[in-house]
Amino acid sequence: MFKKTLIAVSLAATSLASTSVLALEKVDLLIKNATVLTMDQEKTVFNNGLVAVKENKIFAVTDGSDVKDYLAAKVIDANGDIVLPGLINTHTHVSMTVFRSMADDVPDRLHRYIFPLEKKLVSRDMVRIGAQLGNVEMLKGGVTTYADMYYFEDEVAKTVDQIGMRAVLGETVIKFPVADAANADEGIQYALDFIKEYKDHPRITPAFAPHAPYTNTTETLQKITKLSLEHDVPVMIHLAESERENQVIAERSGGKTPVGYMADIGALTPNLVGAHVINVDDNDIALLKKHDVGIAHNMSANIKSAKGVSPALKMFDDGLRIGLGTDGPMSGNTISTIDEFNQVAKVHKLVNKDRAAMPPMKVIEMATIGAARALHMEDTIGSLETGKLADIIIIDTTAPNMVPVYNPYSALVYSAYATNVKHTIVAGKLLMEDRNMLTVDEDAIREEALKFADKVRKTVVESGEVVQ
Amino acid sequence: MFKKTLIAVSLAATSLASTSVLALEKVDLLIKNATVLTMDQEKTVFNNGLVAVKENKIFAVTDGSDVKDYLAAKVIDANGDIVLPGLINTHTHVSMTVFRSMADDVPDRLHRYIFPLEKKLVSRDMVRIGAQLGNVEMLKGGVTTYADMYYFEDEVAKTVDQIGMRAVLGETVIKFPVADAANADEGIQYALDFIKEYKDHPRITPAFAPHAPYTNTTETLQKITKLSLEHDVPVMIHLAESERENQVIAERSGGKTPVGYMADIGALTPNLVGAHVINVDDNDIALLKKHDVGIAHNMSANIKSAKGVSPALKMFDDGLRIGLGTDGPMSGNTISTIDEFNQVAKVHKLVNKDRAAMPPMKVIEMATIGAARALHMEDTIGSLETGKLADIIIIDTTAPNMVPVYNPYSALVYSAYATNVKHTIVAGKLLMEDRNMLTVDEDAIREEALKFADKVRKTVVESGEVVQ
Ligand SMILES: [Zn+2]
Ligand SMILES: [Zn+2]
Repeated sequence: MFKKTLIAVSLAATSLASTSVLALEKVDLLIKNATVLTMDQEKTVFNNGLVAVKENKIFAVTDGSDVKDYLAAKVIDANGDIVLPGLINTHTHVSMTVFRSMADDVPDRLHRYIFPLEKKLVSRDMVRIGAQLGNVEMLKGGVTTYADMYYFEDEVAKTVDQIGMRAVLGETVIKFPVADAANADEGIQYALDFIKEYKDHPRITPAFAPHAPYTNTTETLQKITKLSLEHDVPVMIHLAESERENQVIAERSGGKTPVGYMADIGALTPNLVGAHVINVDDNDIALLKKHDVGIAHNMSANIKSAKGVSPALKMFDDGLRIGLGTDGPMSGNTISTIDEFNQVAKVHKLVNKDRAAMPPMKVIEMATIGAARALHMEDTIGSLETGKLADIIIIDTTAPNMVPVYNPYSALVYSAYATNVKHTIVAGKLLMEDRNMLTVDEDAIREEALKFADKVRKTVVESGEVVQ
Repeated sequence: MFKKTLIAVSLAATSLASTSVLALEKVDLLIKNATVLTMDQEKTVFNNGLVAVKENKIFAVTDGSDVKDYLAAKVIDANGDIVLPGLINTHTHVSMTVFRSMADDVPDRLHRYIFPLEKKLVSRDMVRIGAQLGNVEMLKGGVTTYADMYYFEDEVAKTVDQIGMRAVLGETVIKFPVADAANADEGIQYALDFIKEYKDHPRITPAFAPHAPYTNTTETLQKITKLSLEHDVPVMIHLAESERENQVIAERSGGKTPVGYMADIGALTPNLVGAHVINVDDNDIALLKKHDVGIAHNMSANIKSAKGVSPALKMFDDGLRIGLGTDGPMSGNTISTIDEFNQVAKVHKLVNKDRAAMPPMKVIEMATIGAARALHMEDTIGSLETGKLADIIIIDTTAPNMVPVYNPYSALVYSAYATNVKHTIVAGKLLMEDRNMLTVDEDAIREEALKFADKVRKTVVESGEVVQ
């Protein structure tokens, strides 16, 4: 609406006063000559479009015919490259980058390997070092917002604040002793302190992250539900993920499914975001929809661990809040959402025995506006629309794998690498330009991570205490 | 053996004459300080190893302790990066890059879309332009040898010769009129002329490529088999790929499977390389093994088209000659073998319901020495061993997705992008250095491809004659 007025004024100015500077709209950033995938309700695409940014918000998204109406402090000529909303990774454990490529494919890995490993090595330092590395990886891969579940989340928050990304950070609550809490109640207190500290941060949403239904008691889950509603913060949880979970919850609840049990104890709320959601029946899906629960779909990690394929396509088509996640770097193993695209598109075709299933546009929806809906953030992020926060990425279409582009959705889903992301913008600020990090020192971050990895090798791998 | 002698001589020289230059072995290229995955019989890994190259061959692969014994015209300090044999893409249609991202996911796409499209647009120019682009994509993605099936393969050969890659190029034979032949016999003659022209090329192996059993007559298949044995050239074919093929062949042969039929008509020979090989039973697998047939496993394309998952793991474990392929850019859609790794490793776990199935080392085997075996080229390529041809790639381990590397096989399979390939060497010659192409003009190639894509848009997409 406002945009139309602007054009009118500008046209009038042009015809009356010719090149009057007064008629120009001053903006901070102008991206022009772009193939803009807005991911708005109508999935509007502009083939030679523009995106104008003022401060931290999107000021205009147009077909580019008004390009001369703007006076921009910074101009990016996309030269045909694809511009889309910043990707939203709905589920990861960013700090675990420092453990990546260790003991992949070990049976019962979480309980036999990862929990013991974490007992030895999780610390404030580890969380900070791993998060710094993972932030760089994600930002370079076009992720502008991510949802994290781990320990010492205040350390993750500091790294997110520094690099300038957006994140939902969930402090883990679990029933056994961990690095930052002796028990679930201490975990809850840690989370409350963290929530208090970050509740008003412009880019960070603090949250509770009970590890899973089966690794917490009913009492803990109910307590967290109550507190999350009181404090109006998200609750992130691994849900309906494993056979082990099915068994423990069935025993605890007299045969209920994990989702059925969560509904029963009052833990399904619009604040909840469940990760994985593989083992669900139609009744479970109806419950998740009824309670407006968000869902993180992590294809790559789920098939790597042979856990199965979530009925994500059905849930998406049924209108549930569902977006793509990568899971952590010991699971996925990369944490850029783009790396999921191929697998999400193709494995759903395979299991549905239908090459038309999960078309590229749906995959991009699940990586942008769908993921925003999963995190209940669709009013502010997930699409390129006037008034939304300016989280924007630009994909290089000159790389040989991206030539030619007949269909930008197909090109993104079937061909793009995370490294084809050229620029990443969060809250109107350019954080990566021509693949160079502008707010952090990538080399220093890598060196610190490599140093920590040496420590890991010494204390764990070489000791042979934990299976490699 | 020779290597040991060399060390002895060199040590003697060192102790007697100290820094005598005479004792140094002159080589053309020395890669040092590398994590060398040799992919030899024992899967030897050198953590701080070296690879020395003389002319077009590997002169030495060692643990690096003899690094001072070489005088190299060119030294690459890998600084811990991963060095492995060049990847071998056992099945593609390189020229189809110019059609990439068009009409993905259309039902019965080959017959309803691709064949009509090719009828309109395949030409010498198209084949050359597409091959040039695909060569760059593959070489930048670490593919040093590829097997191709298409039309005007002499045009593909010229591009391969120019860029300096290695390839097995199969001229297509099919029963209906195509751009370079009015019928199968003309196709066979085209292939024979091509074979004659390239039979002695040091890096190009010309071949027959009957499209598939069901798109050729028994007579044609038998004629090609005979000629291939006479001329000692490979025969590449799409085999046991689709339901349609199953039906046509069953009708033709009184209920036989495609592999059973091929055995019956005498078309299974050690010269044959079958692509896909999805619809095979234990008897078919035994036949393929008995006749020493090579197999190209194209996971990404097979699941994208919902055709199913080849029992590639079983065939590999049974000792069959099997390697990874990407299929063409309208199928995969990228053509760098690295892009298959994740999907091959993970989808076999999924379908086998076993997270330990298809471990990373097997995937790397199937991309290197396994793929060499599939093409019957294991005596000259596929591993880093003294005397083999010097086809070598170096993977950057400083990219954030590749940090840290506890296990190089895991890092490659679960984390690497095609763009993490830093240098590519074929026949001892550096063809890509620090991601820059040294033998062709990448920008000019892209521009020509984009111009051709504009023509495609005009003649096909915009006319609406063929479904988009
Ligand atoms: Zn997780
Ligand atoms: Zn093919």
